[in-house]
Amino acid sequence: MGTMQTTRLRFASLLVVAIAILGGATQALAEEIKITSMEGFQSMPLVYPKFMIDNLWILISAAFVFIMHLGFATLESGLTRQKNTVNILFKNVFIVSVGIITYALTGFNTMYPDPGDFNGYLAILGPIGFGGDEVANLTANYADYTYWSDFIFQAMFAATAATIVSGAVAERVKLTGFMIYATILVAFLYPIAGSWKWGGGWLDAMGFYDFAGSSIVHAFGGFSALACVLVLGPRRGKYVDGQVRPILGHSMPLATIGVFLLWLGWFGFNGGSVLSADPTLVSLVFVTTSLAAAAGALASIFTSMIYLKKPDVSMALNGILAGLVGITAGADSVTWVGAILIGLVAGCIVVFAIVIIDRIQIDDPVGAISVHGVCGLWGTIAVGIFSTNPEHSVGTQIVGTLSYALFAFVASMILASVVKATIGLRVSAEEEEEGLDMGEHGQPAYADFQHINN
Amino acid sequence: MGTMQTTRLRFASLLVVAIAILGGATQALAEEIKITSMEGFQSMPLVYPKFMIDNLWILISAAFVFIMHLGFATLESGLTRQKNTVNILFKNVFIVSVGIITYALTGFNTMYPDPGDFNGYLAILGPIGFGGDEVANLTANYADYTYWSDFIFQAMFAATAATIVSGAVAERVKLTGFMIYATILVAFLYPIAGSWKWGGGWLDAMGFYDFAGSSIVHAFGGFSALACVLVLGPRRGKYVDGQVRPILGHSMPLATIGVFLLWLGWFGFNGGSVLSADPTLVSLVFVTTSLAAAAGALASIFTSMIYLKKPDVSMALNGILAGLVGITAGADSVTWVGAILIGLVAGCIVVFAIVIIDRIQIDDPVGAISVHGVCGLWGTIAVGIFSTNPEHSVGTQIVGTLSYALFAFVASMILASVVKATIGLRVSAEEEEEGLDMGEHGQPAYADFQHINN
Amino acid sequence: MGTMQTTRLRFASLLVVAIAILGGATQALAEEIKITSMEGFQSMPLVYPKFMIDNLWILISAAFVFIMHLGFATLESGLTRQKNTVNILFKNVFIVSVGIITYALTGFNTMYPDPGDFNGYLAILGPIGFGGDEVANLTANYADYTYWSDFIFQAMFAATAATIVSGAVAERVKLTGFMIYATILVAFLYPIAGSWKWGGGWLDAMGFYDFAGSSIVHAFGGFSALACVLVLGPRRGKYVDGQVRPILGHSMPLATIGVFLLWLGWFGFNGGSVLSADPTLVSLVFVTTSLAAAAGALASIFTSMIYLKKPDVSMALNGILAGLVGITAGADSVTWVGAILIGLVAGCIVVFAIVIIDRIQIDDPVGAISVHGVCGLWGTIAVGIFSTNPEHSVGTQIVGTLSYALFAFVASMILASVVKATIGLRVSAEEEEEGLDMGEHGQPAYADFQHINN
Repeated sequence: MGTMQTTRLRFASLLVVAIAILGGATQALAEEIKITSMEGFQSMPLVYPKFMIDNLWILISAAFVFIMHLGFATLESGLTRQKNTVNILFKNVFIVSVGIITYALTGFNTMYPDPGDFNGYLAILGPIGFGGDEVANLTANYADYTYWSDFIFQAMFAATAATIVSGAVAERVKLTGFMIYATILVAFLYPIAGSWKWGGGWLDAMGFYDFAGSSIVHAFGGFSALACVLVLGPRRGKYVDGQVRPILGHSMPLATIGVFLLWLGWFGFNGGSVLSADPTLVSLVFVTTSLAAAAGALASIFTSMIYLKKPDVSMALNGILAGLVGITAGADSVTWVGAILIGLVAGCIVVFAIVIIDRIQIDDPVGAISVHGVCGLWGTIAVGIFSTNPEHSVGTQIVGTLSYALFAFVASMILASVVKATIGLRVSAEEEEEGLDMGEHGQPAYADFQHINN
Repeated sequence: MGTMQTTRLRFASLLVVAIAILGGATQALAEEIKITSMEGFQSMPLVYPKFMIDNLWILISAAFVFIMHLGFATLESGLTRQKNTVNILFKNVFIVSVGIITYALTGFNTMYPDPGDFNGYLAILGPIGFGGDEVANLTANYADYTYWSDFIFQAMFAATAATIVSGAVAERVKLTGFMIYATILVAFLYPIAGSWKWGGGWLDAMGFYDFAGSSIVHAFGGFSALACVLVLGPRRGKYVDGQVRPILGHSMPLATIGVFLLWLGWFGFNGGSVLSADPTLVSLVFVTTSLAAAAGALASIFTSMIYLKKPDVSMALNGILAGLVGITAGADSVTWVGAILIGLVAGCIVVFAIVIIDRIQIDDPVGAISVHGVCGLWGTIAVGIFSTNPEHSVGTQIVGTLSYALFAFVASMILASVVKATIGLRVSAEEEEEGLDMGEHGQPAYADFQHINN
Repeated sequence: MGTMQTTRLRFASLLVVAIAILGGATQALAEEIKITSMEGFQSMPLVYPKFMIDNLWILISAAFVFIMHLGFATLESGLTRQKNTVNILFKNVFIVSVGIITYALTGFNTMYPDPGDFNGYLAILGPIGFGGDEVANLTANYADYTYWSDFIFQAMFAATAATIVSGAVAERVKLTGFMIYATILVAFLYPIAGSWKWGGGWLDAMGFYDFAGSSIVHAFGGFSALACVLVLGPRRGKYVDGQVRPILGHSMPLATIGVFLLWLGWFGFNGGSVLSADPTLVSLVFVTTSLAAAAGALASIFTSMIYLKKPDVSMALNGILAGLVGITAGADSVTWVGAILIGLVAGCIVVFAIVIIDRIQIDDPVGAISVHGVCGLWGTIAVGIFSTNPEHSVGTQIVGTLSYALFAFVASMILASVVKATIGLRVSAEEEEEGLDMGEHGQPAYADFQHINN
């Protein structure tokens, strides 16, 4: 045996020992050690880099989700008339801001209560309480990132629900009324419902699965929107003598910018919901998310070409969103083929849902009820059909998603009705004709352009 | 010798041993071990964090490249007339969607064939086949990321080629014809040509170098566009009695948004092409990419100020793109001075190329042939001139880039001609006058604004 | 004692030894070893992953800061008239490009001089000199990332100062004059002043603290803008017979896109200024940045509702920016409650500052002096009030921020005056009426739309 081979053997033994030690060490750390200070943590060089990466990915994901708010702002204003543009932009600025602040003041602790609280309710009104910069038990829910990262990622989610409503009630909702409605929705209703699953509440205990929020965020937002629209009524001139009059959006480029930014943001919405930078899962989620979005677009393009005769760009855009909402509940637990099928079905559903909801004279200017509500239901149920995890069942998924839809619908109905009865939920007919930009804000969106009156 | 010093010495010995073991371990892992399951991988704590980072960077890069599709959509619609805006937006939604789906169904395996396939051709029509969530040989092509990450990153690239054509044929191409053209281009032609270099084919064997695709993506797209434009002919009224009539773009803000988003996306396009988060290379690529873009802008600004008398913002924007396309082939292998020089030359070239191509009555509304085709050639050849790697040669670079340009031109010419002869490639003269938005889609882009007829 | 327990005990001993060794190793590396080559570095598997993550985060942050330039371009053009849109877009393309190139040629070495230089001045005109791809002393200023990463991150910052001026002087500044003004500002004045703190100069030695540049970037830009506006004078028709005539911005969607992109970019601006991916600090910075922005928006919304009677969307947008500028100096050293308070105050300040500055007939079309100048002062001083670090004092903060404001004001005043006296700083009255787009560029921003003459 030559010297080199001996050295190799010796090195190999050392290597085996080293890997055993280190492998064991990580394993042990992951299972047994509760870390409460950064200093203790940083002294563990094997765990620290993974923690850094996971934490950074949650933060980058929060930034991606943040940009979805610009996506909603541009999509909603693009699909409505120019005379209501300032109002929509203003509402979106307000919602994201009030959403983040109220999530710090009450939402975060309501949604993710300490184990001692009763299903989250006792945590209501508690501000970010438990040391935002600490790292909790490395094996518990908050493993792999700081509480601050968890907070900001979830805060960016929270405002989304209210934003979904914003689009559906556009062009006739009264600003102050909507501001109060949205604040209560995001500060109390969304985190209470969210705690049922993500806070370890009763739906979590039942085995309900909603990876990134097809139900918790989207169906919640969509069915809140449906109730609010029913309380509010349709726009003037939309339904005349039983006829549906189309009201065209004022800027398709704005709408397109919105949908592409939403797709971009969804990489953080779904990708960050892995709650770590786990290579297998995050990679899979990027692929399923993209395939479902693309399949949704193609399905709604061909559906609208065949069914509506013309390839409508707003239908293509809603097809992307339908695919994205559809994949959100199961992005980490379906195959790539499953993702395409979920997207295809969502893209078909959304076209018919938009047409039907319009026919029964529920006036949703941007299609939010169809995209977020109907496709949110579909996506949640689809987990029961396509998931590779045998523990996911269609029955439980239906119970869970209907719980969210029903709670959102009833709570939003009560809230909107109270606002309507007190400070008012709708602008005057004159203001609606003139546009909310001048009526509510005294400010045109496009001062230098000649407009056609719509 | 005091106790403390003794302890220090002992500690130092331990340290040396530990570093030796761990250094050796990583080295050994990197060179010798083929990992096929995640579980095996995660038990190797020294390699796992690097794998996590590399994989995450590929995914984030994929998101950056994705946003380039919004960049193209807004750039192309900004540089054309408002009456064709919906059509351009629709085409871009379709291309990115069909690009991702076909890349999963056929493109990925065609472009990156298994070694057993004959130069990729036998892999045609094979869907993502080889276990997307696995990590292959840590030292082979797919080291450092999952197949899923590789797939989604490359899928975002694939649709780019067809998007480049989309801009050049804008304002007169028939929607259904273009949809078929673009689908075949992205599903078959691009991945076949791509496999010559990135799939380890004959150009790779020759020593041809194209880091992130000055030829493989941009020259391919640019020369496909040239052929398609020749088959299609110029827009009505563009060349009358031998005179060139300028047709102004309808929104410079949209065009500017497009170019800034493209620059942003290029950080992923070039930065992700390192195929790891290697600090030296990714840092260098960010610097060379930015310096070339900035130099391209300055060169085209001053060229257009001197040569065209007026500082044209669309020339400045095309200068940025010219610099970006130019640096793409060698972003990892030129110095920062080389990057500036490549950008400066590209920024000059693009101004003259746009003017000349217009004079010889090839109608390219957005300058895609100049930006992607001509500057793609330049960038690829520039590797032979400026590369710090002595193995790169001007001769090989010329052979490689001309191969891509020629293949793209011929294949696109045949494809466009077949489409033209069968279902048609061009809208009617009446529809062209009215605009494709109403003709193809029955939908105006800006319903609330008074337009000037152009 | 059973076998399993024995094994556990033995394993535990091994574990303790391993952690001790590795913990010690990292510690030792961090404190003692100067690494000058990549090869040496890569052989240290415990340090390398952290270095990879830190470096990647700086690069991703640079990409985020880059997109702020699109944010400024769209915000500034949205808040001004359509006839000057091309001019604003062009200036922004020029500034980011010339900023990056001059930062490579002179700025970087001026701002971060070698210790041997006299406070940076001797480094003026030195190009990126010290091996851009090397990693310096792991414990010194440049630890955790390559010089290339440091360069590109700082280069993206540098152009910001000139961009701030661009908005304030919009709609009447002469293009060539401004190009020279901006080039000198970004190439020389900004890096000289920046070196006082970030280059380890006299303000750093004094204990002045400015985490990410409330003073170094924003107050510098804001007070440069104030001087330039004073030299330039107000727009024609803005102040007639002592009356203030409002001049409306031409596109609120563009302005909104701008502010959301700025907020997004600020995650890199502040988050990247941690100069590592340190989980505690980066997480905290994301939270404080978001809370301050949200609080700024709410404060200016309610201030403008009460004080101006109408909820103005441009005030809401400026409230976001005010909060962001305000938190920038102390984003890593205040609590979440402090961040909300800083944002609330900034959001109130900005409304009154804009109104007052307009009343005293200083014409700042976009509110840049108020947002960046006044709130930059506030944010810097706020560190002295809210910082959890007892070493930060209000007195030192006042000295530091006034030094930046004063230097910027005086230097900009001289520079603008020299430009005015030589090649001219202002367009003719006729050109101003017609708009700079046709006058300076011969190109309308919106060729297909009918405009109202403003």
